Amino acid sequence: MAAIGSTRTAQGGPTLTARGAATRARIIEAAADLVFQQGVSATTLDDVMAASGTSKSQLYHYFADKDALTNAVVVRETERVLDAQDHLLRDANSLAGLRAWAAAIVEFHRERRGVGGCPIGSLAGELSDSSEDARLLLQAGFAMWEDRIRAVLDAMHGTGELRADAVTADLAAAILTALQGGLLLTQTTHLTRHLELGLQMALEHVALECNTGHRHKKARQSGQ
Amino acid sequence: MAAIGSTRTAQGGPTLTARGAATRARIIEAAADLVFQQGVSATTLDDVMAASGTSKSQLYHYFADKDALTNAVVVRETERVLDAQDHLLRDANSLAGLRAWAAAIVEFHRERRGVGGCPIGSLAGELSDSSEDARLLLQAGFAMWEDRIRAVLDAMHGTGELRADAVTADLAAAILTALQGGLLLTQTTHLTRHLELGLQMALEHVALECNTGHRHKKARQSGQ
Repeated sequence: MAAIGSTRTAQGGPTLTARGAATRARIIEAAADLVFQQGVSATTLDDVMAASGTSKSQLYHYFADKDALTNAVVVRETERVLDAQDHLLRDANSLAGLRAWAAAIVEFHRERRGVGGCPIGSLAGELSDSSEDARLLLQAGFAMWEDRIRAVLDAMHGTGELRADAVTADLAAAILTALQGGLLLTQTTHLTRHLELGLQMALEHVALECNTGHRHKKARQSGQ
Repeated sequence: MAAIGSTRTAQGGPTLTARGAATRARIIEAAADLVFQQGVSATTLDDVMAASGTSKSQLYHYFADKDALTNAVVVRETERVLDAQDHLLRDANSLAGLRAWAAAIVEFHRERRGVGGCPIGSLAGELSDSSEDARLLLQAGFAMWEDRIRAVLDAMHGTGELRADAVTADLAAAILTALQGGLLLTQTTHLTRHLELGLQMALEHVALECNTGHRHKKARQSGQ
């Protein structure tokens, strides 16, 4: 799990030349693209060599085997997903910020009609049962994602928008759960309906833990 | 999509002998087991022949190609998942019934530490982008699942437990979304935490649409 976020180097070597690092990165990018399109299992090292323009000896210089390359792809995809929404989560410190983040995700997947779903979710579905190393990396990736959502909720604790007794860890986990389910169903249906309803539910769930002003419309109507 | 729930026969033939039907079913079961363990892409027709004890000519008598067999596996897995929870959903006509259904799902996945996740969800993640036929079958499978959840909510409309203006289609979609996200995260983490938090959120979301007595604890406490 330490691999995520740390500087990754070639097998057995602490440093890479700039050119070596570029070659290694090129191999990972090519592998990540192939895996995103067709899954890990259908992607061969020959495919990766062809797509990255590298020889077998080059590829094996950087990766001991397909598992090692797959793990590097997991790390890369996790970074890619988190980096893509970093500006939305980093600047969010309110329910309105979370709603803007959710709307941006919905819009992104609406434009691509759900194709590809979530890169991390897809890898998790394919690898969790077959590779313990990959599963641990994916678990760490989800945990990082959840931590970034939680950081927004913690900020809302700080401003007093969120009630002091609201458990931000549980709320963040529930939001990530709705998001992952929504992305899988959007990938399958090519519609963002489940993603929208799931995220809407999750943010209303947060609103219920807020100090007045954000309450669920119907909850207010019932006037109990 | 019509394939789900209809009587399926050999390619080009309206009926099968009992023995033919048994052979066909044996091939599908063997394929479904292999796909569940290792995914569609890693499962070859040779694997299926070996596991089912059938020859190439037998296999091709029933299935034109791997895609045809894969689609039969999708249909079979959908039936299996829905049949397994049929007794819980069929008898449920209340929020308490939905809570019992959710608890049974959590317990099932706790016992197996999340391994395998949801067979339909796994197939959806692997096939939605690569096979349009499979995607449509999986979409139909999710729709059937959602319909069964919605039937419980409609029954709650009937008894007056659910408010008349509650949109049961949207509530059912939100429940399925939380369920799928929870299963994927449970498969990855080997813990049922996300599944529990997701389903709990979804059923509290339903409770908010109920006529008194089921309200979220904190919502009541806030007393607005």
